[in-house]
Amino acid sequence: MKMLAVALTLSLSAPTLVAADDQALRAKAQTARLQPIPEVIEDPVDNPVTPEKVALGKMLFFDPRLSASGLISCNTCHNLGMGGDDNLPTSVGHGWQRGPRNAPTVFNAIFNVAQFWDGRAADLKAQAKGPIQAAVEMANEPAQVVATLQSMPEYVEHFAAAFPDAPEPVTFDNTAKAIEAFETTLVTPNAPFDRFMRGEDDALSATQKEGLALFINRGCTACHGGVNLGGQGYFPFGLLKRPGADILPPTDKGRFEVTRSATDEYVFRAAPLRNIALTAPYFHSGAIWDLKQAVAVMGTAQLGSEIGEGEATKIAAFLEALTGEVPTITYPILPAETETTPKPQP
Amino acid sequence: MKMLAVALTLSLSAPTLVAADDQALRAKAQTARLQPIPEVIEDPVDNPVTPEKVALGKMLFFDPRLSASGLISCNTCHNLGMGGDDNLPTSVGHGWQRGPRNAPTVFNAIFNVAQFWDGRAADLKAQAKGPIQAAVEMANEPAQVVATLQSMPEYVEHFAAAFPDAPEPVTFDNTAKAIEAFETTLVTPNAPFDRFMRGEDDALSATQKEGLALFINRGCTACHGGVNLGGQGYFPFGLLKRPGADILPPTDKGRFEVTRSATDEYVFRAAPLRNIALTAPYFHSGAIWDLKQAVAVMGTAQLGSEIGEGEATKIAAFLEALTGEVPTITYPILPAETETTPKPQP
Repeated sequence: MKMLAVALTLSLSAPTLVAADDQALRAKAQTARLQPIPEVIEDPVDNPVTPEKVALGKMLFFDPRLSASGLISCNTCHNLGMGGDDNLPTSVGHGWQRGPRNAPTVFNAIFNVAQFWDGRAADLKAQAKGPIQAAVEMANEPAQVVATLQSMPEYVEHFAAAFPDAPEPVTFDNTAKAIEAFETTLVTPNAPFDRFMRGEDDALSATQKEGLALFINRGCTACHGGVNLGGQGYFPFGLLKRPGADILPPTDKGRFEVTRSATDEYVFRAAPLRNIALTAPYFHSGAIWDLKQAVAVMGTAQLGSEIGEGEATKIAAFLEALTGEVPTITYPILPAETETTPKPQP
Repeated sequence: MKMLAVALTLSLSAPTLVAADDQALRAKAQTARLQPIPEVIEDPVDNPVTPEKVALGKMLFFDPRLSASGLISCNTCHNLGMGGDDNLPTSVGHGWQRGPRNAPTVFNAIFNVAQFWDGRAADLKAQAKGPIQAAVEMANEPAQVVATLQSMPEYVEHFAAAFPDAPEPVTFDNTAKAIEAFETTLVTPNAPFDRFMRGEDDALSATQKEGLALFINRGCTACHGGVNLGGQGYFPFGLLKRPGADILPPTDKGRFEVTRSATDEYVFRAAPLRNIALTAPYFHSGAIWDLKQAVAVMGTAQLGSEIGEGEATKIAAFLEALTGEVPTITYPILPAETETTPKPQP
């Protein structure tokens, strides 16, 4: 009888005990600055978001005519159906040239402190201008972009609606602002991790909870914190042990190219980890395809301690709980060209 | 008083008179075998259309992982936001290679008697297999396509739902069938022409009605009849006068390559004209960007009579009335790769 009573007590109190553990884990995650996706997305600097601007930005995001060839759109490398990236080690652009770095996901990019692997763009409107002009990406020129958009009356109307106070609405700056406005809608809320942080104990599996605890205890959160579990600061890749040239090619010195400061050699923005399970291959070099292996590389390179197969599996399971809900996107019908639209130059 | 009475009578009876003209024009168009888009789309041969098959086909249509590079999807050259084609003279594919012919629109392709400019594919499921394997397009192989799709459990589930009776649902044949099923939904009804044919007199402008009358009287309907105003038969390009090599490159002998019959030299399927205003440049060579100019070329080459600027303008105005309503398409979220997914080979 006594034993049964004990068993019964344990059985009854078990959920409470687990809940208490979950609460403790949640508090620990909060202390480690891990945050769920906020319910309200703040407007970007100097760019109030309106439905008109978002609608225009979506058209521009999907329009290959922003590229010189007429073939490559933002969505080519930041495919919204494939985790917001292109599933390639490094992107392929104009003339089938290979870009130098792995395309980061556009999802939740609004939460990053700055854009690109080296943070050289302060925000998404600055970022958007980069690939459009990069010779190995869309290879276009601002004047040509404006001429293209200006040639289509439907685009002119959309720009006027999106920038009602602008004397000249169709500009390269406004093109970038509209794309940024659209990108503020590209957030993926309600990942199992977010639901757990909001109090849903069952949103994470037992393995994922162990993975989260390891992620914190091992020190991953030192770099991978905030809403995006990364994207908030710059750190040397190979802080404790430099990875091989396949993973860290010696020719790409990262943030050094931006600041020209010796201390920024091989420094990169910590990768944001949301939807990471959808965005292989990993690192700026796109050299590693397996998430567990990427976790192991991080252990050796950044933490100076080996993360074994068992722990890597748990951490990877947690990282899979960062896959959120992709917004429903209606494919935009783009304006028709006119006689004055500049011809594509593939 | 009398004059006023006459004026009043004329004013009152004018709509009736115009309506009678419209009815006559409509009858003439029917006699010339011009047809509106039917309300019910018949299933393709040996491929009953189900919602599950359409859903799968949409994913496949947008999935660049059907290509060897992981970069090129059906939608790359048949962009559903840009009239169902790529706005290029001839398409650019794997390795930035230029294809030999202009990409035809995928919209309403279900109504064509056969597919490709030379009709070498009997239907859309046969067509779908072409570009996936063409070295200058997606450069993939059936076994690799199947391995790719089979590696993603979510795709396996979708194939099982789309082909519930198949012992092995994930096959190259079924990939093509699903794409064909999706393409049966890519019809663009309610063009001004369709609405006119259904009795809406005001759906066409006066100029468009004149253009329609000219289109019939000049003999364009001899080749450009049926639902698609074309796509129904094969005709020599240059029936009465061979166009220049820029428009009709001597190396591309058209349907001759399919039949090896001397009478099929420079024979092509008459271009379907629906949404033609959205699908410049024109002809299999994609050599002509201006619709009026294309109409003029047709006059000289096919009808043996010059179509002047005035008439070409009216016919082009009518052709613009063939732009229909593009179906609303939700951009598909594609299945995530797994460890066993073959790596892209750009």
